[in-house]
Amino acid sequence: MQIGELVAASGVPLATIKYYIREGMLPAGETDGARRATYDEEHLGRLRLIRALLTVAELPLSRIKAVLDLLDHGETDTGTVLRKAIGAIGDPSITEGAPTPRASEAIGSFVPGYAPLEPAMSMLEKSLDGIDAAGFAVSPERLRLYSQAMLTIAESEVEAIPAEPHEAIRYTVLGTVVVEPLLVAMRRLAQQSLASGR
Amino acid sequence: MQIGELVAASGVPLATIKYYIREGMLPAGETDGARRATYDEEHLGRLRLIRALLTVAELPLSRIKAVLDLLDHGETDTGTVLRKAIGAIGDPSITEGAPTPRASEAIGSFVPGYAPLEPAMSMLEKSLDGIDAAGFAVSPERLRLYSQAMLTIAESEVEAIPAEPHEAIRYTVLGTVVVEPLLVAMRRLAQQSLASGR
Repeated sequence: MQIGELVAASGVPLATIKYYIREGMLPAGETDGARRATYDEEHLGRLRLIRALLTVAELPLSRIKAVLDLLDHGETDTGTVLRKAIGAIGDPSITEGAPTPRASEAIGSFVPGYAPLEPAMSMLEKSLDGIDAAGFAVSPERLRLYSQAMLTIAESEVEAIPAEPHEAIRYTVLGTVVVEPLLVAMRRLAQQSLASGR
Repeated sequence: MQIGELVAASGVPLATIKYYIREGMLPAGETDGARRATYDEEHLGRLRLIRALLTVAELPLSRIKAVLDLLDHGETDTGTVLRKAIGAIGDPSITEGAPTPRASEAIGSFVPGYAPLEPAMSMLEKSLDGIDAAGFAVSPERLRLYSQAMLTIAESEVEAIPAEPHEAIRYTVLGTVVVEPLLVAMRRLAQQSLASGR
């Protein structure tokens, strides 16, 4: 397709697309001697990924570039891909590798299946700090219930990760960030539904 | 306690506490004729709530004031309390009451127990729009699995809502916002744990 069609298909303005190309975030179109460059589904998919990371995950451009770097220099091992993807999309305010005493203690209450891996452990530590600072308490029984629910979800998701590394990164990054607001909305809708019936 | 002790116990600077009092977000201390005002656990709890909404939920001050208004003019019905609380802490960019065609269609795939209630339906619609815009797809089977997990979580949470309306609002608001980052971190840790074992 030509650039005008890419604008129409993606909903991203022409000037923005040109900016992404200049920044190396999007490959330039193919020119086969003719004057106009042409773009394909690969360009469209990548534009959609950039926009999702920007608008749904609200990641800064520097983090989005880190995700795109992962895509361009793909690892072949699913575990490594996932760790790097979670690190790239993760909260930039977390300090990966710092001690995580609360998280380490908490996963003792989790259902079996969890390993104390970075960067997710640092995110867990930060969330537990936030709960503590708010004067809220989550019992070990509640932690177990939450961890069972999240493990069930993750099992189904990790099984569905494509084998091809490039697709695996795209699937993991998108699946992680765009599904989070869905789960949050579902929980609130379930709470509302149950409470209105009380 | 005196204001210096409130500063120490809450970790909130003196100038900020005074600002909250001027803005009507925090009641002034008790003065019984003596020169210095005294503060109690009620003040400390309220400060913690304000800070959690500010730092964990990253709500703007106008939204935090709406939550505090709810606390000060409490409803007695749990369903109404929860609906108002979810509305007050919700994403300010959602348009409550607008048509929610995607969300209405999606809840057809959910496990029974969900009702199409605002403002959560508008949040659900926005999350589904984001998934669609990203070029990602969530199958009806996956929606069912997610909705089962979130309903199980919500059942345990709604059962635990205190009967006293003031406490119910505090519990609901805090429980909703501070637990969201915990669930997100747990899901990412579960994904990492499972993927590293593949």
